[in-house]
Amino acid sequence: MQARVTITLKNGVLDPQGKAIKGSLNALGFEGLNSVRQGKIFDIALEEQDKTSAENKIKDMCEKLLANTVIENYTIEITE
Amino acid sequence: MQARVTITLKNGVLDPQGKAIKGSLNALGFEGLNSVRQGKIFDIALEEQDKTSAENKIKDMCEKLLANTVIENYTIEITE
Repeated sequence: MQARVTITLKNGVLDPQGKAIKGSLNALGFEGLNSVRQGKIFDIALEEQDKTSAENKIKDMCEKLLANTVIENYTIEITE
Repeated sequence: MQARVTITLKNGVLDPQGKAIKGSLNALGFEGLNSVRQGKIFDIALEEQDKTSAENKIKDMCEKLLANTVIENYTIEITE
């Protein structure tokens, strides 16, 4: 199974990196930007063949390592 | 318009960070992992109202700043 985990900052959590990228885009002449927020993805290939147990396993990985659930949200998408 | 840019490493490009995360997951007891690859996303809110011109504008941002097109692929998704 192939899965994609998407991790984004929760609403209200400051994103200085995103703000810096917005500043750089403005400096390059891009206008009309309201906000830029950065997040990350993990593409995980695992041997597990059952979709539900793959999802549960990945949820566990997110809670234990991949996401900081105090400030981040995560979504799991099984892609194949 | 709200858009999400997803940036992933091209196939064949080494991903030491993903490899380290895979190692950490193994150390936590997660088995049956074939690979972990990391990527990033940018959630961009822009004033542009026309979908096509928003896409073109973001494509331009990717080429000029957001992605390193030598080693990275990018996809653009207009979310609303």
